[in-house]
Amino acid sequence: MIMLFSMDEKTDAETDDDGLAEVVTLGRDNPLRLDSGKVIGPFEVAYKCWGKLNRDRSNVILVCHALTGDHYVRGINPITGKRGWWENMVGGGKPVDTDIYYVICINVLGSCAGTTGPASPNPETGKAYGLDFPVITIGDMVRTQAMLLDHLGIETLFSVIGGSMGGMQALQWAVDYPDRVRTAIAIATTWRHSAQNIAFHEVGRQAIMADANWNHGRYLDHKERPHAGLAVARMAAHITYMSESGLTSRFGRSLQDRDRLAFGFDADFQIESYLRHQGISFVDRFDANSYLYITRAMDYYDLSAPHDGVLAKAFQGTKTRFCVVSFTSDWLYTTDESRHMVRSLNAASARVSFADIDMDKGHDSFLLEGGEMDGVVRGFLNSEADVMAEELS
Amino acid sequence: MIMLFSMDEKTDAETDDDGLAEVVTLGRDNPLRLDSGKVIGPFEVAYKCWGKLNRDRSNVILVCHALTGDHYVRGINPITGKRGWWENMVGGGKPVDTDIYYVICINVLGSCAGTTGPASPNPETGKAYGLDFPVITIGDMVRTQAMLLDHLGIETLFSVIGGSMGGMQALQWAVDYPDRVRTAIAIATTWRHSAQNIAFHEVGRQAIMADANWNHGRYLDHKERPHAGLAVARMAAHITYMSESGLTSRFGRSLQDRDRLAFGFDADFQIESYLRHQGISFVDRFDANSYLYITRAMDYYDLSAPHDGVLAKAFQGTKTRFCVVSFTSDWLYTTDESRHMVRSLNAASARVSFADIDMDKGHDSFLLEGGEMDGVVRGFLNSEADVMAEELS
Repeated sequence: MIMLFSMDEKTDAETDDDGLAEVVTLGRDNPLRLDSGKVIGPFEVAYKCWGKLNRDRSNVILVCHALTGDHYVRGINPITGKRGWWENMVGGGKPVDTDIYYVICINVLGSCAGTTGPASPNPETGKAYGLDFPVITIGDMVRTQAMLLDHLGIETLFSVIGGSMGGMQALQWAVDYPDRVRTAIAIATTWRHSAQNIAFHEVGRQAIMADANWNHGRYLDHKERPHAGLAVARMAAHITYMSESGLTSRFGRSLQDRDRLAFGFDADFQIESYLRHQGISFVDRFDANSYLYITRAMDYYDLSAPHDGVLAKAFQGTKTRFCVVSFTSDWLYTTDESRHMVRSLNAASARVSFADIDMDKGHDSFLLEGGEMDGVVRGFLNSEADVMAEELS
Repeated sequence: MIMLFSMDEKTDAETDDDGLAEVVTLGRDNPLRLDSGKVIGPFEVAYKCWGKLNRDRSNVILVCHALTGDHYVRGINPITGKRGWWENMVGGGKPVDTDIYYVICINVLGSCAGTTGPASPNPETGKAYGLDFPVITIGDMVRTQAMLLDHLGIETLFSVIGGSMGGMQALQWAVDYPDRVRTAIAIATTWRHSAQNIAFHEVGRQAIMADANWNHGRYLDHKERPHAGLAVARMAAHITYMSESGLTSRFGRSLQDRDRLAFGFDADFQIESYLRHQGISFVDRFDANSYLYITRAMDYYDLSAPHDGVLAKAFQGTKTRFCVVSFTSDWLYTTDESRHMVRSLNAASARVSFADIDMDKGHDSFLLEGGEMDGVVRGFLNSEADVMAEELS
């Protein structure tokens, strides 16, 4: 049986990790113009890579991480001390096979695991940006990734793959850099944030900003952090990552370390204890302002907006081959939304594969191992590798 | 078109209101023993009633309110200055017809609209109870209602009706007082809180308790109230009251008073502005500790718990006739859950009518007027009135 959201470290992960973690400074001479119109630079970009770049640099796969993720896809994450978030997907012999591909994952702009974000020092003041950090978009994240690939001399991507916000980036890559993306794999994601998606994020932001320790974003100048608000934000979001049936089968109404109701406000139920743990453990690894900025970027995301709301127009003329994966129990980014993307890609005459995977673990199914998703990704990449081999032969 | 959650006062309501609001003190001589084992008394119970009690006292309908509701079903609510919450359902010529029935609604124990709750003075100290108020259950709420009916000399209920937590009370009445309940109408409700239901409530409670002004529940001794936390709790809950499709059709990604994204953390989107309004306006009318206590009562609610999880056993031998109403877009208490209740009632050989109403407005559909629900309730009550008339003839 698949264990969902194990509170312990992954036990089945490999102990080796051939990855290299790097941080480079970009935008020193050419600052990046953001979608907001503001410019940023210089800024740092943290990334990690595995495998070997082949001679014609045609074997690069860019892995894009989700809202609270980072570039520690494999190996021990130095921030959390835990194993990487996608070891089941990326590695030697894994679906994204580091024996074949040169795999790179980049911490997104605005985050807090090495790439510049609101907790980083503002070059103009020497103090943390806080709310002086510019509001960013998924497009801005992708632009910084393209700058890094330019810096590394990598022109094209064999594939760009991601789940949730990572899938948004994969689609944005295909739209913004159609000539650089051979294939794009978008898992458990959407083409635009819905009103309900925005609503849940707004609750999280309000929880953070309601925390007296948030101090209008200047908490790093003080002793206290807005941990309580950030924990509430994480708890609210976490519910959306799990399915109702998954919660019922895992927790139901089981009590936590007691035989009967305690008639108080401690965590009587296991689900309460679990959620509290999710909130409390999150604040040690994530910056509250980064949470504001990245959720904002996701809310702003709408690939159809520049095309009068017609998503197909965003992909018109694309040569990229797409793989769309959804999960039946994902109510955050639903199967219906993936179907709309597939229909739009069809309307744009794009090549697209679609898998709707029957799992009851909700949105976070994309992080779990042992599922049908591994085979879908492996098969999709292998078939495109065959196509490329034929082209070269 | 039905307007959902109008921010304005209802405009189509009648201006007359023949109701009488009363407050009585109960439990002075016989304190109430609660499910927790604690006792409470004396305590006050606020209620309102409409229509005329007939000679044999057989025309009483008890209306039960939801989590944040009160006994102001009709007429101007003196706390909010707005019209009552169920004027479309209750009144002269309405489905719950005050020309025929004597209708009573009682503010639940633990609430804050007149009935004793955590903001009320503790007789032992003279100060507000705060967290010294005992944790209560849906069963306790129903027991106080039965005490009030005893006080009023009302033995039997022609019907007990409610939506959401009101429906929980209606079912609890039928279980706990089978000889006193002729019919029970349970709308948009469930027989037990699920893990997901508990999870959303726990987020709300944590948001309140994370507010520095909450002061471990003793905020009434200080100047400030935990308004920020309570507003966040309300926002999170409010999302669960609306359907994804309802949110999309009403708000979508429409911007609030602006032509383009503002690249900041103000309310860019209408859905954000709407949610913030829901949060801010809620804190003026509701007590934060009452929110803790009533959500706790709902989480503790499980009619099947005393029967090894077999709901049918709770209704075994019942003579009450039931009407169960669900809404197709309600993802808080789903149609599937109502179906389970209907199947359990069938298994208990109870008489039950079931209507699953196709509306896209989510859980709060039960508060909206003009829907199919009105006809279902009217027809159910009329048919039972015919049965009773035959019995008497």
